[in-house]
Amino acid sequence: MNKSLADLKIVIVGLGLIGGSIARGLSAPVPQSKANTSAKVEKTKKLCREIIAVGRNESILQQALADGIITDYATDVAQACVDADLVIIAVPSLTVEKVLQELKPVIGKDTVVTDAASVKGAIIDSAFRVYGKVPENFVPGHPIAGSENSGYSASLEDLYKGKKVILTPLDETSQAAVSLVQILWESLGAEVIKMSVAHHDQVLAATSHLPHLLAYALVDTLSQQGQSEEIFRYAAGGFRDFTRIASSDPQMWHDIFMLNGEATIEVLDKYMTDLSRLRAAIKNRDSNELMATFKRAKKSRDKFLEHFPKANK
Amino acid sequence: MNKSLADLKIVIVGLGLIGGSIARGLSAPVPQSKANTSAKVEKTKKLCREIIAVGRNESILQQALADGIITDYATDVAQACVDADLVIIAVPSLTVEKVLQELKPVIGKDTVVTDAASVKGAIIDSAFRVYGKVPENFVPGHPIAGSENSGYSASLEDLYKGKKVILTPLDETSQAAVSLVQILWESLGAEVIKMSVAHHDQVLAATSHLPHLLAYALVDTLSQQGQSEEIFRYAAGGFRDFTRIASSDPQMWHDIFMLNGEATIEVLDKYMTDLSRLRAAIKNRDSNELMATFKRAKKSRDKFLEHFPKANK
Repeated sequence: MNKSLADLKIVIVGLGLIGGSIARGLSAPVPQSKANTSAKVEKTKKLCREIIAVGRNESILQQALADGIITDYATDVAQACVDADLVIIAVPSLTVEKVLQELKPVIGKDTVVTDAASVKGAIIDSAFRVYGKVPENFVPGHPIAGSENSGYSASLEDLYKGKKVILTPLDETSQAAVSLVQILWESLGAEVIKMSVAHHDQVLAATSHLPHLLAYALVDTLSQQGQSEEIFRYAAGGFRDFTRIASSDPQMWHDIFMLNGEATIEVLDKYMTDLSRLRAAIKNRDSNELMATFKRAKKSRDKFLEHFPKANK
Repeated sequence: MNKSLADLKIVIVGLGLIGGSIARGLSAPVPQSKANTSAKVEKTKKLCREIIAVGRNESILQQALADGIITDYATDVAQACVDADLVIIAVPSLTVEKVLQELKPVIGKDTVVTDAASVKGAIIDSAFRVYGKVPENFVPGHPIAGSENSGYSASLEDLYKGKKVILTPLDETSQAAVSLVQILWESLGAEVIKMSVAHHDQVLAATSHLPHLLAYALVDTLSQQGQSEEIFRYAAGGFRDFTRIASSDPQMWHDIFMLNGEATIEVLDKYMTDLSRLRAAIKNRDSNELMATFKRAKKSRDKFLEHFPKANK
């Protein structure tokens, strides 16, 4: 398995925002003058030997082929993955188990499999259910990158540039497999970090899953107010940014809350306790409590911004 | 009072983000070639005769004079407002009453007074306390424009361009006074809307005050987690946008919640009920409830975006 990326047959299962952006990132554009004179499917130079996309929607797969960011496609996982060196599962979290099942008969012991789901504990459980153990060549992963836009049409060549990718290998995971997945993400400009499965799911519950829940809930609360049309009419830029993530793909987030419910509820309960405390402070016109909370929050948020990578626009 | 803006002596009390942006907007820049040859204080052509700024920090007032966006300044409200045609109070909400008090001995019946506070009921109450009635030349107003950045250094010439300004005149408010304030805001590129005081405070509680409370609370909750530094390290663009408003001025928001507590708590309680319902759906792995809520919220939010004015970047 000591191959360089250039030798590899890579299969991407799911050509949405995440999978599409991997394919685009692996397909370095040829300078314009060359691109104009070469055939359409050869207009990009691949970082790997083959990029096979698997998806349900054949018109999108054809589009990706026409865009020159994949070398071939299939609608059947097993068929696409014969002889694959690296399989990247980029489907909604609840669909990962089905893909692992479809992979089972065809992948050999030299095939590395990774995923991009936003939850890791549940994916480990899936792998265990399908294989009776977590295969040593399965590297659980999660790129901390995304957008409220979803689907292939939203995919971007530089989505992962300057972003973090968390890998959560187990004790039994092969070091060589982890290295290969790390090389993949680094070739897309990402920084790879390793942490435990449980820690990943807690951290992401706090910084990603809870905020999405809060944003969805707010928009839903307001849209059910009597004069919601009018309420939204007077909303400004702050509201637009605060609720941006409520435009995210409902299926993706449904899956995440179905699979990372425990960690989400744990931090949600802390949040609701704090919110009740602020409610009491407003009710009691507790000037000191309000001021102290807002100052503390502003300080933390401004400090967070200092560490925020410039590339993560 | 049938004056055009060009004849007016305008006093801006408070030269922060809101007041500073009014002064900048009233000072149309002279084309660069002219500006280079003219004296520093004449580099901009004013939309009105005089712009006097009142503030506590003299170095900022001197900076504004050097920037050519005011014609003079004072640190005393009464002194600045003698012979003023229009006084704009742009201080934190809880300080408005003090300014109304300072204005009392010097403003004549031809002086129009307006404010820019984010709450309107409490400001009406302040006017009543100070004057024994709400003066007919007092026009309560609120520009729906802002930024998480505050202070004079954050002020922008085009902050109000394409934004909405809500005026909440009472039955006894002079039509001429309302017209003058409307002309002021329209000259800065804003769209002026009139509504009742109570309706303003409800709408803003829903679209602005509640979101700010939720964002402050989230950052505060997470910053008090055991490993908050690490938690923030893995936060991405969604978190940054969701919490942007938690970097807002604590004093401003303290004042707003002290003064618009009732309307905020009313919508907060609805929100917490909805959030508890979502918590139960996660706990019970209620797939239908989660999916229905997220789809409904996404639809509402996407619809809101359609109506969102392009200028409100």
